[in-house]
Amino acid sequence: MLTETFQLDPDQPSITLTSYILEQSKEITASESRPAVLICPGGGYLYTSDREAEPLALRFAAAGFHAFVLRYHTGSTGGSVHPQPLLDAAASMKLIRERADEWHIDPDRIAVCGFSAGGHLAATLGVHWQDELLSTHFDTDAAVFKPNALILGYPVINFLYMKKKMTEEVTDPQMMKVMQDCSTALIGTDDPSDEELEAHNPARFVTDQTPPAFLWHTSEDTLVFAENSLQMATALAEKGVPYELHVFENGPHGLSLATDQTAREAHHINTSVEPWFNMAMTWLRKHLA
Amino acid sequence: MLTETFQLDPDQPSITLTSYILEQSKEITASESRPAVLICPGGGYLYTSDREAEPLALRFAAAGFHAFVLRYHTGSTGGSVHPQPLLDAAASMKLIRERADEWHIDPDRIAVCGFSAGGHLAATLGVHWQDELLSTHFDTDAAVFKPNALILGYPVINFLYMKKKMTEEVTDPQMMKVMQDCSTALIGTDDPSDEELEAHNPARFVTDQTPPAFLWHTSEDTLVFAENSLQMATALAEKGVPYELHVFENGPHGLSLATDQTAREAHHINTSVEPWFNMAMTWLRKHLA
Repeated sequence: MLTETFQLDPDQPSITLTSYILEQSKEITASESRPAVLICPGGGYLYTSDREAEPLALRFAAAGFHAFVLRYHTGSTGGSVHPQPLLDAAASMKLIRERADEWHIDPDRIAVCGFSAGGHLAATLGVHWQDELLSTHFDTDAAVFKPNALILGYPVINFLYMKKKMTEEVTDPQMMKVMQDCSTALIGTDDPSDEELEAHNPARFVTDQTPPAFLWHTSEDTLVFAENSLQMATALAEKGVPYELHVFENGPHGLSLATDQTAREAHHINTSVEPWFNMAMTWLRKHLA
Repeated sequence: MLTETFQLDPDQPSITLTSYILEQSKEITASESRPAVLICPGGGYLYTSDREAEPLALRFAAAGFHAFVLRYHTGSTGGSVHPQPLLDAAASMKLIRERADEWHIDPDRIAVCGFSAGGHLAATLGVHWQDELLSTHFDTDAAVFKPNALILGYPVINFLYMKKKMTEEVTDPQMMKVMQDCSTALIGTDDPSDEELEAHNPARFVTDQTPPAFLWHTSEDTLVFAENSLQMATALAEKGVPYELHVFENGPHGLSLATDQTAREAHHINTSVEPWFNMAMTWLRKHLA
């Protein structure tokens, strides 16, 4: 395996793309041209969580994917970060596709997998890859940014819905604070208008150019409500974009692989939820065949 | 196993409840008090499908559930059937609970499982069990009608949404006809108002008294769109009712068990979808523990 860390922002050593490139060998037919996955860890746009980074890359790598972990700009580096995370994701896709030959990557089989705020970023790239913002910024054809499939784990989709639900219902003030900090980090104000929040709702921008998506969530998630995934799935269904959705009943926010390999606390191990990864792989192989 | 068929309507020999009662034995601890399931096959309120009847009862029975298959009133018997199917389902719950002691059924562990139009019926009982219509009609306490859990397979939920989507999009006219026949059979007119259609939308009547639900669908269902399940799940989420939802990507409407035991055509066998039953059983055991 070739692991290498690319610095994406010359001024910020912490903004990086780390590769997990599988060996190419004449003994292994599959190694001639493999799919790849760009992983966007969550962390409320305040940091990028290790629990949704390398352990995911290694599961994907073990399944035959070249994997890349993106450490994108977050609010912990100060102020509003938008559109920087989107630019980071786009820069990563460009880098991966530019070096596809060298790394034996099939440029038409590149998935983007994100969790929580990283799921928001993955979904945002999925609906905005063809926007002029990106092609102008990088002075290149938009096709280079297009994910061929999305894997969204308990993604943040609709900030406005969450704000309303958290305001209307008796909610843990700590949860409210986390969600506010997340939207502040992304949008740059702690009192955004409804329109500002809606501008960051990827479900509103789904078109028939949006790649197929696999979504999963837990219905008990009290931080990023499962309605986020339900709304994204509804938008995909309405535009005829292929999708698969699994809302498991039990389990808190942020389960990642739901195994001991991503657990910080005992409740991060959840045997009911853990099958999501193999289900996603089965789905992904179908779409990246 | 004790199989017996009860005629529910003295005037109609085809309106029946068929029991699959497991043996009670001192050698088997579990047999002292078992959960039960009422199965509502689909068929567009025009008939009740054998593909969603006995094969389901036998899978439930093999898993330790006393099973009951309901052949409710359908449009093929003429005119508008509502509220007759709901009364049939309520009569079945009453009969099962009245004979719970005799049959070694735990009256607090009775699930209702329905498919397609039968899923609509199961969901309708789930949201209307406490309505005066039922307690008055049967002159009894509403608690006797309450499902303790719902299993909804590709359920019809929102007739109005389906009508709109089928009208707005290029749709197979045959599908449109099936859905119209279904709503006509239930509602009694081929030109119902939006209000009439909405009166039969169980998602609108979800409360915190609605039992927990396990829902599954395929996103490729072109007859009963997966948005039906997405909308029911959204309503459950908004009322804080526990639920689990699996929208598998591939597969047509009406897969039932998705195995050779319920297949009439080759595409009725689907290994990606088939795990739904065991997932539902795991979920059900948790809720009927």
